[in-house]
Amino acid sequence: MHVIHTTALEPSAIPGIEHATIAGQADGLAQLSIWRQSIAPGCATPPHRHDCEEVVIVESGQGELHIDGIVHYFGPESTLVIPRNAPHQIISTGQAPLKILAAFAATPIEVFLPSGEPILLPWRS
Amino acid sequence: MHVIHTTALEPSAIPGIEHATIAGQADGLAQLSIWRQSIAPGCATPPHRHDCEEVVIVESGQGELHIDGIVHYFGPESTLVIPRNAPHQIISTGQAPLKILAAFAATPIEVFLPSGEPILLPWRS
Repeated sequence: MHVIHTTALEPSAIPGIEHATIAGQADGLAQLSIWRQSIAPGCATPPHRHDCEEVVIVESGQGELHIDGIVHYFGPESTLVIPRNAPHQIISTGQAPLKILAAFAATPIEVFLPSGEPILLPWRS
Repeated sequence: MHVIHTTALEPSAIPGIEHATIAGQADGLAQLSIWRQSIAPGCATPPHRHDCEEVVIVESGQGELHIDGIVHYFGPESTLVIPRNAPHQIISTGQAPLKILAAFAATPIEVFLPSGEPILLPWRS
């Protein structure tokens, strides 16, 4: 499949997070997954890690990246680089939703709590 | 490096293509590169291939993806999935620039002409 129609964001099982899988294994990929998400003000991802690198492009909104015991503040002109297996959490701290595009160097993506317990994703990856 | 400031597009040595490397090896990555490009109306990438998968998210504009002898027409609600080593060319066919974000499952990225001759990229990857 070479051209796919971008799907709209849909509410997910994670409070405040709307999600769209833009591309992944179901589109013939073996090395990449692309997600788009909107995180409502005051909401956050769970703390988690995955066995591949992730790059988050911030489209709009403001947030905090908690990683390695450090809090990084970011806005819409930012890109977040998340190393393989680094536990991290993204929190939406602005007055408008935090809108992000995320690229992962794997498909499907295995996600874990920082403790190591697998998280069953509520969307295809 | 966990948060990087997104750099602006700059003119490149390829006619009609403005480029920004959003993230790559210089940012501590080993598995991913992210580029943003603007391709002027009527301009195009050279026909080329690379030894990793690529996903192109179309932000605005219209274009053609030439791949495997087929022409795919796309607009701003499209995502292009480009298999590893598949020769392809992207042409900007709209009246406004074609603005894209591209994710690659490698860094740096080795790029080749369809004949196999390496292309020396005019930007960091």
